[in-house]
Amino acid sequence: MAGNTFGTVFKITTFGETHGKSVGCIIDGCPAGLTLSEKDIQIDLNRRRPGQSDITTQRNEDDLVTIHSGVFKGKTTGTPIMLQVKNTDAKSHDYDTLKDVFRPSHADFTYSKKYGIRDFRGGGRASARETLARVAAGAVARKFLNKKTKMEIVAYVEQVKNIKSAVNIDTVTQKEVDATIIRCPDKEAAVKMIELINKIKSEGDSVGGIIRCVVRNIPVGLGEPVFDKLSATLGHAILSIPAVKGFEIGSGFDGILQNGSEHNDSYYSENGVVRTRTNNSGGIQGGISNGELVHFRVVFKPTSTIRKQQQTIDINKNTVELSASGRHDPCVLPRAVPIVEAMAALVLMDYYLLQKIYG
Amino acid sequence: MAGNTFGTVFKITTFGETHGKSVGCIIDGCPAGLTLSEKDIQIDLNRRRPGQSDITTQRNEDDLVTIHSGVFKGKTTGTPIMLQVKNTDAKSHDYDTLKDVFRPSHADFTYSKKYGIRDFRGGGRASARETLARVAAGAVARKFLNKKTKMEIVAYVEQVKNIKSAVNIDTVTQKEVDATIIRCPDKEAAVKMIELINKIKSEGDSVGGIIRCVVRNIPVGLGEPVFDKLSATLGHAILSIPAVKGFEIGSGFDGILQNGSEHNDSYYSENGVVRTRTNNSGGIQGGISNGELVHFRVVFKPTSTIRKQQQTIDINKNTVELSASGRHDPCVLPRAVPIVEAMAALVLMDYYLLQKIYG
Amino acid sequence: MAGNTFGTVFKITTFGETHGKSVGCIIDGCPAGLTLSEKDIQIDLNRRRPGQSDITTQRNEDDLVTIHSGVFKGKTTGTPIMLQVKNTDAKSHDYDTLKDVFRPSHADFTYSKKYGIRDFRGGGRASARETLARVAAGAVARKFLNKKTKMEIVAYVEQVKNIKSAVNIDTVTQKEVDATIIRCPDKEAAVKMIELINKIKSEGDSVGGIIRCVVRNIPVGLGEPVFDKLSATLGHAILSIPAVKGFEIGSGFDGILQNGSEHNDSYYSENGVVRTRTNNSGGIQGGISNGELVHFRVVFKPTSTIRKQQQTIDINKNTVELSASGRHDPCVLPRAVPIVEAMAALVLMDYYLLQKIYG
Amino acid sequence: MAGNTFGTVFKITTFGETHGKSVGCIIDGCPAGLTLSEKDIQIDLNRRRPGQSDITTQRNEDDLVTIHSGVFKGKTTGTPIMLQVKNTDAKSHDYDTLKDVFRPSHADFTYSKKYGIRDFRGGGRASARETLARVAAGAVARKFLNKKTKMEIVAYVEQVKNIKSAVNIDTVTQKEVDATIIRCPDKEAAVKMIELINKIKSEGDSVGGIIRCVVRNIPVGLGEPVFDKLSATLGHAILSIPAVKGFEIGSGFDGILQNGSEHNDSYYSENGVVRTRTNNSGGIQGGISNGELVHFRVVFKPTSTIRKQQQTIDINKNTVELSASGRHDPCVLPRAVPIVEAMAALVLMDYYLLQKIYG
Repeated sequence: MAGNTFGTVFKITTFGETHGKSVGCIIDGCPAGLTLSEKDIQIDLNRRRPGQSDITTQRNEDDLVTIHSGVFKGKTTGTPIMLQVKNTDAKSHDYDTLKDVFRPSHADFTYSKKYGIRDFRGGGRASARETLARVAAGAVARKFLNKKTKMEIVAYVEQVKNIKSAVNIDTVTQKEVDATIIRCPDKEAAVKMIELINKIKSEGDSVGGIIRCVVRNIPVGLGEPVFDKLSATLGHAILSIPAVKGFEIGSGFDGILQNGSEHNDSYYSENGVVRTRTNNSGGIQGGISNGELVHFRVVFKPTSTIRKQQQTIDINKNTVELSASGRHDPCVLPRAVPIVEAMAALVLMDYYLLQKIYG
Repeated sequence: MAGNTFGTVFKITTFGETHGKSVGCIIDGCPAGLTLSEKDIQIDLNRRRPGQSDITTQRNEDDLVTIHSGVFKGKTTGTPIMLQVKNTDAKSHDYDTLKDVFRPSHADFTYSKKYGIRDFRGGGRASARETLARVAAGAVARKFLNKKTKMEIVAYVEQVKNIKSAVNIDTVTQKEVDATIIRCPDKEAAVKMIELINKIKSEGDSVGGIIRCVVRNIPVGLGEPVFDKLSATLGHAILSIPAVKGFEIGSGFDGILQNGSEHNDSYYSENGVVRTRTNNSGGIQGGISNGELVHFRVVFKPTSTIRKQQQTIDINKNTVELSASGRHDPCVLPRAVPIVEAMAALVLMDYYLLQKIYG
Repeated sequence: MAGNTFGTVFKITTFGETHGKSVGCIIDGCPAGLTLSEKDIQIDLNRRRPGQSDITTQRNEDDLVTIHSGVFKGKTTGTPIMLQVKNTDAKSHDYDTLKDVFRPSHADFTYSKKYGIRDFRGGGRASARETLARVAAGAVARKFLNKKTKMEIVAYVEQVKNIKSAVNIDTVTQKEVDATIIRCPDKEAAVKMIELINKIKSEGDSVGGIIRCVVRNIPVGLGEPVFDKLSATLGHAILSIPAVKGFEIGSGFDGILQNGSEHNDSYYSENGVVRTRTNNSGGIQGGISNGELVHFRVVFKPTSTIRKQQQTIDINKNTVELSASGRHDPCVLPRAVPIVEAMAALVLMDYYLLQKIYG
Repeated sequence: MAGNTFGTVFKITTFGETHGKSVGCIIDGCPAGLTLSEKDIQIDLNRRRPGQSDITTQRNEDDLVTIHSGVFKGKTTGTPIMLQVKNTDAKSHDYDTLKDVFRPSHADFTYSKKYGIRDFRGGGRASARETLARVAAGAVARKFLNKKTKMEIVAYVEQVKNIKSAVNIDTVTQKEVDATIIRCPDKEAAVKMIELINKIKSEGDSVGGIIRCVVRNIPVGLGEPVFDKLSATLGHAILSIPAVKGFEIGSGFDGILQNGSEHNDSYYSENGVVRTRTNNSGGIQGGISNGELVHFRVVFKPTSTIRKQQQTIDINKNTVELSASGRHDPCVLPRAVPIVEAMAALVLMDYYLLQKIYG
């Protein structure tokens, strides 16, 4: 109800502020018998970790995860899995200057008004550090899905500001994605993107862009109409990531340039498997997966924290000038790639398990 | 879990197939004491009703709603409100020819695979007739919100295929929207849109477009971070409407053409009220409403049912030629306007009530 | 949240006041493919129906159920099943004299205070007529469980006031239970119980008693620790029935007269099946079924509505004398038997489906 | 779904095995602004702690709690509160002898069958150590309720085996309860109870009993009919505590010895406040609190772990002789007192917050 739980049968509840003692989550509903170690989770956390490259934030933390429960002799037991990461780079005194300021496009004002109180250290709960717990839980879901279904989830940076890329969504791999620090598998575009980000960074400014995500080998039948269509829950999951302003699936906004006769995905039979000739639906019809590639796009606004000077007001409604003194993250996109994948994994895991009931 | 419930404290559960005995819903969690009659609900149902104009489906039903419970002497009592509309235009025999066919971009194939059985009469549960219950429930939410908060929700058709409109989102009213049969308040654009739809219709084809929705007088503080951000739940609600392929809030996909320093919404104080100079956030920051106008855009793909001939396969994987023999709906957009408003109302009602707990 | 939904994956939401237009429910989450007709449901409704015998209420209604959705060509489709029964004996004018009175041990006062308004016709939503929907939904669950697992649920009247019965819980059948109008399979005790009830009835008074329920052929593994132990959810379900004041499972309150060494249920192997020598646990250990007979007892207080004169106050706090002028139900126990069975069936159905995920 | 979450708006999710790294919980939905420190929680944890006296288990742990999130500068912020207690007495090697044995009336067999795997160290998740998290969360709820409503929750040991006590439920205080190590405020009975427990302990056996709980100053209107009656949810909460076999409210099982005319609680007006002359209802009518004292009774079976020799089988269905070699807890009742109070507090907190919506 208060918004810190996601999922229905594979349910995660997250906790933690960016400068509190720790961040993490409880996973309730992971089936027993899955081989699981901290290493499995650490791999994805490292892909999300700050300080990976010059184009992301320089906050320096190892983000080492500990499994506190739910795993015994290397296997999940069906009981809650608590995952915890201690905050080690939590210098609260850095933030005292910001305690009364409403930073533009941050959650400072809305949290203050909603709760009457707010942890002002680095954004507190509203910090993107909260997504660490999502990535940790997502790693568990991905391992399970991959083992049971060969399902594969790959996200990548498709566009940074106005620089677009050309990528084959049928074949792109995580290895290709991780080959560049911007996580764009089109190498030429990647070079331009990195250049742009470095320029923007030097100006103390920030930039946004688009991540595309594809899901391969998805079983037919995932999704629960009418309100919990697979597309609707994916949208919910993705739009809950900080800085996301839009989500589109399949043909998305551009699909309206076609008429119905062009847009409709005709069925045919390929070696006895029901397929569609086109995939404007993005692998989902009537809210249920049809076995085709699921693909969707996500837009991240430019990061709100910038070093450039801005005007805003404080808690007493006095005008103040503001410029982030320390590090800032000119482009969150490469670190957002594993977050998008994690949210997709959590949704798919939930629907995969649900399908065991109703299917 | 099985997907037919929406909301947490103002919770609706819908039922009904397009050619079954009736469609409707139970609203659980409506506060007691609200003055409510069937007339209040009928107004919105009439805006969604088929057969309103030449550019929509010619199915002819009155869609008269009956309140079966939860209202006593003209007021809600706090107990479940059951709303029911009988299906009167349910000629099942029309559909026998379609019983084994997987219509392109319909839910025929996915329902068959998921459930092993499917009500093939007019799409059964997957028919857009299911949205009638949403509109009925949304009418109750809107009445409550309007009474308590002066909140106003206005949606309109912004674009049909490539025909765009110019509308002032700060002032647009429902009266202006309903002045044209296409529900676009830009009268010049409306004329062109209607022309286009008539042309498409005569070709037996269909067309999609974009609806924009604005919410005025929204209280500060609605939304529950981190997973149930107001934007995420709005996205979920909207993406659960049949034919929706994308959702964007505030600056949306185009927002990435700005740098952070341009995109950030600076705070200032206007007569003691905290305001933002721009509204790229779309009235939501950190997942919580900040009191500015909430505005979002929704894309509807072209309707799947067309009269033009198409190729597809049947349940035995034989290729078949298909063309909808009867009426079809060349453009769902005008009838979708009250559906978008209803889903927004349901989300806002839920968060308004939740805010009474946590606020 | 507002309390009219029960279950998690086989979820029912009920509606209706005793003198409103209709009562019923939506079942969401019934698996597709179950053969289901109105007849299957009517059997249990008839066992709950008023006017069955001299010792129950004389309200006369047929309680005929209609399936409005979710069933196509005689089988469930996986979509919501709406079940509706019209109220035909709803003479509201009978109740005008009670509209301002707080009847002793009824919900009149608490509903008035909680909601500020109340449907005073015959108790409105707080009437036991609401349980009709539970029995209808329970019939669907029972049919499914019986088909899939041979699970059998039998309840019977064990005690009326101080008259106890002796029944073999391992063998008792529904046929034996229904052989007497009091639904007590110990025929000698049944005669005494009926005599007592007739005497109490002639005095314008009412009487309570105990129902025992047994569940046979329950699969091992049902129940979700730690909060949703099978025993806890059964208790929740049973304690939600009007007039229930207590619930005990296995050895219950009397179990404390034994020491641990006597009370512990020792395991042994019987033809390769793990069994326990005693069953003080009532078939549940650690909140999970162990395959032994599940058995529990439920106490119903004497009915609140009596013809005998009583003193109470009205809404203006004036003292008033009260005596139910019309029919009253001197003993709800025989009609409560199918309600207890239905609630048990709903819980077991839910856990049976859940076990398909986690098992 | 998987059973480790309790509550709807004040929602706790617990984690941890008795010999894992830590145990604890996340509270999601605690309103912002509550003054809260670890000390507030430690008080109740100390009342539950093992090793308090000779008549309970000698396991020796400090059970020191740490608040990891959700509290800033001494006040709750509205974000999730993670409470953690490290396990310091976790000698896993003690338990290797039990790894293949199904201890009588323990959860060993059912966990093994349900999950296919089980943490055999001291009962793993099924250990009563799990209740530590409930007490921690309950302490937060109690503090909030006491501050807002003066609500007071007092539980005490009413009966041990056949030794009953006489206690005035209208006046009994926690101080009186905690005055004896058995937590029975009837001092004479307490002496006899302690004697009995010491005798049973010396025999290597265990004993059960009854705890009564009273709630004073409860606001009118708490509870959500029809399925989530206050009595039903209290029953659910209490029956989820390990070793509980029964729950009764108000007149409970003995109430059936009265006729309706005796059992009904007549209303009268006392200084303008609506009161009832008797309280057989236990403060709840139609599932909603009426402002009178809420009181209920809970039966705990004798502890399953005993030193006396018992026969059972192992995982290979071989008969084995078993006797707990180390410490055992001959009577859980005194330590169960704060657990019962905590569960009551969690239910009342949830309904108190819900009432802010619907009231």
